[in-house]
Amino acid sequence: MKAQTLKGFRDYGPEEMLVRDEMFARVAGVFRSFGYAPLHTPALEYAEILLGKYGDEGEKLLYKFEDHGGRMVALRYDLTVPLARYVGMNQNLRFPFRRFQIAPVWRAERPQKGRFREFYQCDVDMVGIDSAQADAECILIDHSVLKTLGLEGYRIQINHREYLDGLLEQLQIPGNKVVPVMRILDKVDKVSVEDLGEWLKEEGLGDEQITTLLGLSAVEGDNANRFAEGRKLAAGNEKAEAALRRLEQVVALVDATMPDVPVFFTPSIARGLDYYTGIVYETFLPSEYGVGSVMSGGRYDNLLGSFSKQQIPAVGISLGIDRLLSAMTAAGETTEVVASDVLVCTVKGAEDGAAVVAGKLRAGLGGSSVELFPKAAKLKKQMEYANKKNAAVVVITGPDELAAGTATVRSMKTGEQATVALDGVVETTAKMLGGNNE
Amino acid sequence: MKAQTLKGFRDYGPEEMLVRDEMFARVAGVFRSFGYAPLHTPALEYAEILLGKYGDEGEKLLYKFEDHGGRMVALRYDLTVPLARYVGMNQNLRFPFRRFQIAPVWRAERPQKGRFREFYQCDVDMVGIDSAQADAECILIDHSVLKTLGLEGYRIQINHREYLDGLLEQLQIPGNKVVPVMRILDKVDKVSVEDLGEWLKEEGLGDEQITTLLGLSAVEGDNANRFAEGRKLAAGNEKAEAALRRLEQVVALVDATMPDVPVFFTPSIARGLDYYTGIVYETFLPSEYGVGSVMSGGRYDNLLGSFSKQQIPAVGISLGIDRLLSAMTAAGETTEVVASDVLVCTVKGAEDGAAVVAGKLRAGLGGSSVELFPKAAKLKKQMEYANKKNAAVVVITGPDELAAGTATVRSMKTGEQATVALDGVVETTAKMLGGNNE
Repeated sequence: MKAQTLKGFRDYGPEEMLVRDEMFARVAGVFRSFGYAPLHTPALEYAEILLGKYGDEGEKLLYKFEDHGGRMVALRYDLTVPLARYVGMNQNLRFPFRRFQIAPVWRAERPQKGRFREFYQCDVDMVGIDSAQADAECILIDHSVLKTLGLEGYRIQINHREYLDGLLEQLQIPGNKVVPVMRILDKVDKVSVEDLGEWLKEEGLGDEQITTLLGLSAVEGDNANRFAEGRKLAAGNEKAEAALRRLEQVVALVDATMPDVPVFFTPSIARGLDYYTGIVYETFLPSEYGVGSVMSGGRYDNLLGSFSKQQIPAVGISLGIDRLLSAMTAAGETTEVVASDVLVCTVKGAEDGAAVVAGKLRAGLGGSSVELFPKAAKLKKQMEYANKKNAAVVVITGPDELAAGTATVRSMKTGEQATVALDGVVETTAKMLGGNNE
Repeated sequence: MKAQTLKGFRDYGPEEMLVRDEMFARVAGVFRSFGYAPLHTPALEYAEILLGKYGDEGEKLLYKFEDHGGRMVALRYDLTVPLARYVGMNQNLRFPFRRFQIAPVWRAERPQKGRFREFYQCDVDMVGIDSAQADAECILIDHSVLKTLGLEGYRIQINHREYLDGLLEQLQIPGNKVVPVMRILDKVDKVSVEDLGEWLKEEGLGDEQITTLLGLSAVEGDNANRFAEGRKLAAGNEKAEAALRRLEQVVALVDATMPDVPVFFTPSIARGLDYYTGIVYETFLPSEYGVGSVMSGGRYDNLLGSFSKQQIPAVGISLGIDRLLSAMTAAGETTEVVASDVLVCTVKGAEDGAAVVAGKLRAGLGGSSVELFPKAAKLKKQMEYANKKNAAVVVITGPDELAAGTATVRSMKTGEQATVALDGVVETTAKMLGGNNE
C-alpha cells in the first residue's frame, strides 16, 4: 500500500502549521478583542441542509454520501450555511450574536495550483443587528487584522448594494440585466475601461447608460469627493441616496474610532451581489504582495432566515487565509516561528544530566520550547538536527562538563559560545535567545 | 427544512468553545515547550490507507464512500494511522520527529450519552527514537499538562509490556491465553480481586498462576518497593528483568528532571497490549472528579513501519479531551473564560461616542475583549445582554455624559459604579477588571 494523500488534499507539516497557528492566534485575538467568540459546527451535515444553497455548479462539488443509517449526508461546503442552521436551531440566542469560525471546508473542485479540495475558511459575523455601527465594526476588524499581521498599504473598498440598485433603476436598466451588468462592473480592476464599455454594449445598454456606469470607476480622491461624485452619478434616486447616507455614517464611525483606517467608498465594487443586501467591502493588498483581494464580505439580511421563522440581519467578513499567509511570508512576517528555541544535546554517559538541564531550561524560560535530543548520539548529528529545526541555542553537557558542574551554551546564529556553571545555564540561554530575537 | 444536526454530531457554542480553545492553548503550550510541533492531516484519506488497521469492529464504523473520481475514500478514524502515512510519505524526516495533533475524528458508533460520532482526539508522539529518555519525556509531558490544567491528586501508573510478557512466560501460561489474561488483569481497578480470580480460573489457570497474577494488584508503596515486589513475582525471567531495568531508568530520569511527579510502577496496568511494545501508562484522576483515566499511551515500535521500508520506533500519549474538560469544570478551572470582558452600551443620540469609547478601551486594555452594543437600545435590554455574556464591566456614555465629557463605568460583579472623565475610562475599567480577576 502506497503512502499518499488524496488528489487535492494535503498535509501541513510542522513548519507550516507553526506559522498557520501563530497567524490564527493573532487573527482570533483581534476577533476576541471585539467580543467575537468561536463556534464549532460538525464537518458533516444533513445533505438537505446544504442543498439548494450553492447553485447548480456548487452543488456538484458537494462531498455527499449515504451514512450507515441510510441518511444522505454531506461535508460542509462553507461556514455560512452551518451558521444559518445553528441560528435556526438556537432560537434563544441573544442578539447581537458575534461568532467566528476558522475551519476546513470541502469542495470536489478540479485540483490546480493553489486550489485544494480541503481548505480553510475564516469567517467572522455579527448576527441579529442591522446598524451602521455593526457595518463599521467589520471595517475596524478588517483593519485591525491586517495591522496585527504586519501588512501595509492595503485599501478597504466599500460600496452598498442599494447604491448600485438605485443607480441601475435611475438608468432604467431592465431587471433581467441587473446581474449581468453587476458582473461586468465587478471586473473593473481586471480589464480596461474600453473592454467594460464593449461588454456593456453587448448587453444592449445605450451610450448614456454606459458613460454613467463607466463613471463609477473614475470616482477617486478622498471620501468627501467620492461621495459627492457618487451622488452626482445617481442624482435623484432615493434608494441610492439612502445607501450613500448609510455609508457616510459608517465612514464617520470608523474615522472617529480609529485613526488612519484606509477605507474608501468605491462604487464599482459589486461583489457577491446575489445575496448581499447592504454594505459590501473588499480589501486589496498592494500589487507587490501578488495576492490581490484578501478579505471581503458585507451585509446579508435575507440569508440567515432560511432556517428561522423571521428575517435575521447579519454582516460579516471572510478572510482569505492562504492569501494572507502568502502575503505575510512575502513581507517577512512569518519567519520567527520555530519548533525549537533550544536544543539540549545528549552525550553518552551524561543522559541524566541532559534531561535535568532541559527541565531547568523549560522551567526557567517559561514559554520557550526546549527540546532534548532523547538519546546519546554523535554531536555532529545533533548539531545537524539543531540546524534543521532552526534552533537558536544549543546546550551541551558532556560527562566532563557535568563532572565540573558546567554546561556549554552556544548561539547558533552568532556562533557565540560560553561554558558556564549549571546554575547560570538558564540566564545565559535567555540572553542568547533574547539576542537572537532582536 | 428543519434546522438540525445529525444524530451523534453536535455544535460547540461560543461558551463551550472559549473553554475548549483556552484548554487546547494550554495543552499545546506544554507540547510546544518540549519541542513538539503541530501536524495537520486531511479529514479524508484513501480508504485503503485506513482499512485493515482497526479490526473488524472498528472498520464497520468507518465513514467510507466513493468520491467524484470513483475512489473509495474515508474520514479519518484516529490520528495514529494518518501519522504513520505521513511518516511513510516523508522519508526525509529527521528523527526524533515530535508532533502533536488536536483534531476531530469520525466513527459511526451508536450514539449514547457522552459518546459522539465526531469527537476530538489529542495525540502527542515522538517518532524515530527508542530510549528511556523518550519514555520519560512522555511522563513529564503528562505531568506538565495536568499541572497546567490545574488538576491535582492524579497518579501516573506505568508498566512495561515485556514485564507482563515475561511474567506470563515464567508462569508457563500458553500463548493463546496471553491476550484474554491481559484483558482480565486490565479490569483490576473496576472489579474485586475475587472476581478476577474467578475469571482467571475460567481461563483454565492453576491456583499458583492465579496467586502470582493477583499479586500484581497488591504491589504498592514507593517505587523502590514496587520494583522489588515486581522483581520477586517474575523472578528469574530475563525479559521481565530487562523491562524492570528500563522502567527504573525512566523513573530515575523523571525524578531527576522534575520534582514530585506522581509516577508509580503498577504492574497490573495492561492497556492496549495488542500494539504496544514497551512502556505503557495510564493516568487516573482522584475519584471525586468522576472521570477516571484521562491520559494513556505507550511505546509502539511496530505500528509506524506499515508505510515505511524500515521499523520506526515511537512513543506517545493520547489525552482524553472531554474527560479533562469535565474534570477542569469540576475543579472550577474553567469558569474564567468569557466572551466579553467589557460591554460598551449604546444610547440613542450618542452612537458615535460609544464607538469611540469602545475603540479607546480596545487600544488601552490590550488583550481584553471589548464589545460594543451595536445599536441604540433600552439600557435594561443592554444590561440583560451584559449579564448573559457574563461581562465583568459595563461602560455607559449617554448624550448628557458625553456632553459633560464623562462616562459611567460599572463593575457587574461588585456593583461598584463610577462616573469618570473620558480620559480616565481606560484606567477605571482596567482597575475594575483587575478587581474582578482576583
